[in-house]
Amino acid sequence: MKIYADNAATTKLSRVSKEAMLPYFDTIYGNPSSLYSAGQEAAEAINRARQIIAKKLNCEPREIYFTSGGSEADNQAIISAAQIGARQNKRHIVSTAFEHHAVLHILEKLKKQGYEITLLDVHENGIVMPDEVAAAIRDDTCLVTVMYANNEIGTIQPIAEIGAICGAKGVLFHTDAVQAAGHVYIDVKAQHIDMLSLSAHKFHGPKGAGVLYAKKGIFLTNIIEGGAQERGKRGGTENVPAIMGMAAAFEEACAKIDGNTQKLTALRDKITEGLLKIPHSVLNGDSARRLPGNVNVCFEGIEGESLLLYLDAQGIMASSGSACTSGSLDPSHVLLAIGRPHEIAHGSLRLSLSEENTHEEAEYITEKVAEVVEHLRSMSPVWRDLKEGKKSYVIQ
Amino acid sequence: MKIYADNAATTKLSRVSKEAMLPYFDTIYGNPSSLYSAGQEAAEAINRARQIIAKKLNCEPREIYFTSGGSEADNQAIISAAQIGARQNKRHIVSTAFEHHAVLHILEKLKKQGYEITLLDVHENGIVMPDEVAAAIRDDTCLVTVMYANNEIGTIQPIAEIGAICGAKGVLFHTDAVQAAGHVYIDVKAQHIDMLSLSAHKFHGPKGAGVLYAKKGIFLTNIIEGGAQERGKRGGTENVPAIMGMAAAFEEACAKIDGNTQKLTALRDKITEGLLKIPHSVLNGDSARRLPGNVNVCFEGIEGESLLLYLDAQGIMASSGSACTSGSLDPSHVLLAIGRPHEIAHGSLRLSLSEENTHEEAEYITEKVAEVVEHLRSMSPVWRDLKEGKKSYVIQ
Repeated sequence: MKIYADNAATTKLSRVSKEAMLPYFDTIYGNPSSLYSAGQEAAEAINRARQIIAKKLNCEPREIYFTSGGSEADNQAIISAAQIGARQNKRHIVSTAFEHHAVLHILEKLKKQGYEITLLDVHENGIVMPDEVAAAIRDDTCLVTVMYANNEIGTIQPIAEIGAICGAKGVLFHTDAVQAAGHVYIDVKAQHIDMLSLSAHKFHGPKGAGVLYAKKGIFLTNIIEGGAQERGKRGGTENVPAIMGMAAAFEEACAKIDGNTQKLTALRDKITEGLLKIPHSVLNGDSARRLPGNVNVCFEGIEGESLLLYLDAQGIMASSGSACTSGSLDPSHVLLAIGRPHEIAHGSLRLSLSEENTHEEAEYITEKVAEVVEHLRSMSPVWRDLKEGKKSYVIQ
Repeated sequence: MKIYADNAATTKLSRVSKEAMLPYFDTIYGNPSSLYSAGQEAAEAINRARQIIAKKLNCEPREIYFTSGGSEADNQAIISAAQIGARQNKRHIVSTAFEHHAVLHILEKLKKQGYEITLLDVHENGIVMPDEVAAAIRDDTCLVTVMYANNEIGTIQPIAEIGAICGAKGVLFHTDAVQAAGHVYIDVKAQHIDMLSLSAHKFHGPKGAGVLYAKKGIFLTNIIEGGAQERGKRGGTENVPAIMGMAAAFEEACAKIDGNTQKLTALRDKITEGLLKIPHSVLNGDSARRLPGNVNVCFEGIEGESLLLYLDAQGIMASSGSACTSGSLDPSHVLLAIGRPHEIAHGSLRLSLSEENTHEEAEYITEKVAEVVEHLRSMSPVWRDLKEGKKSYVIQ
């Protein structure tokens, strides 16, 4: 059995998305900036894509800027807000301790440039409190950036409440919706979102395509200077096939939200229930206010990396947290942010499901994880110390 | 007849490139940063791609950074060199007046940040003189950036000579090789190139993929912060299919350089000869030191845009200059840089050929351009004034 359960890292391109891309590789391959009809055909295609995405986010097509992915969109949103702030002498930004590194690293860079960054604590349930956001906003705050759903533990933030607070205080609000887009309903107007980032390959679209939504009136700073593409805000020939694939995938994903929520929530809860039967295990993040397909559990006394390699040998593809930092030996900053101590943050497992996963697979996963955890514990000196009472369990 | 003669704007994806991409959409779709075997398979694939490209440029794989395209690579190269310069208190950059906007616009931005920019004049033949580069370099020069081949007039610059001068003076040398890569041989060691940008869709690879080559030891500044991808220098999940397509296309294009040079030079010269028979026409750029497939001619008394629309109606897809600025009414900055006056810079035609073009097409193009130019002149008040001697011809 081969089970792909790492859809938060990336997804398989859907048939619909692939078919939307194919004609633009070698049939309608003109440059959208070209004047002749074959170029204009490509330009009209990306306009249609812009309309599709705008409609699903409830914004206007001209508020959609195509980027090479979620990281680029996050960078451009935050740099733009920082520059707008600087022109008004406002150099304070509010964010959270468990954002994606695309957000945290650009905030660190801004800090070196003289900006003041407040990173809010995240509670054990992995939810940011709107009143704490409100309390952190100052007269010189130029931006609040809070992710829509966390990429490791899947917890969904009270975006509409945070948006309303920012709106009332006149502060720009950006949300990294890379994990949420195509999985939960987003309405930038109703949720008072000024800027939003999404990435196609997280909802069965292609890699290399993303969107920055920026409400009209927000003056964007280019991070890629060049031609007049994207209303002068992003140089470089438009990636027409990827844009078409992204729009098709987003439309398809949004149409499936109700069905997938029902299906994945059932699978998620079944796996979670199974895994929590393993002694000294704990769910990371709120059990209900999380993405339908996200399971994230810590097991005491084992290393997440070993767990992944043993599961891979059993045909299960999962992760310990974010794929983007898998080369690092540091424990997950997300798990530390929700208060997990180092020794158990190392023993995490993230399973992120798609509609292709089945109940049979859920049972197989639960069974195999239990076996592997038991095996790893049997070899673990830490576990022996815990069992012999030389150390105390962190997870009861 | 449908003739695509705008390969400098973008190219049709080659069969080889497309086939190299396809498996990575929905079969080997894992995230290269994932630990399990399916992720590692993707990671190994992009390592192979890195090796292929490095070998063709004569550099090491770790000197290759994948980007979303040529514009991103240009931006990152120039920003990196500027930051390295700032740390040494060197804030002077030498470039030319006919660079691509991805270079010129980032230089303008740096100028606002206090850098001093020297833009060298380009001579009528569209060639930058190495001794003028040498004379422009000062003690506080941190970067020389000169494009390999111009995107409008196709002239090929004396890159090895400029590289040697920069090397001898200890100044970083970057070249925007977007139009050259895959069309002429490049050897970054022999040509003393420290940084180089290329873009896959200019050599029958996919849109949305590019390379920044940066010699080891050059500390790159991220323009996209995020995960640890590309040795920490470019955040965002790797665009695996596009990278595979780019490597396959580059290998294919490099293998065809000799054959294509012979074929396209013959086509180019045939078309050029035909077009220059039209009275009051002039070739832009040196007739020999130019890309094999590039023809760029000015016709007095007509508007380039009208010419393009009439040619489109005859099935000929061409451009007046860069696709990236086709929305603009300004005359080409490249044609102004080589000394063409405004009134004739507006009447330019660029034809950029690929191996798919034929001698029959060359004849058809020559015939149709002559017809359309004659027709447009018959309606042109400027042409009437010229004919009646009320104005003097710029092109004799």
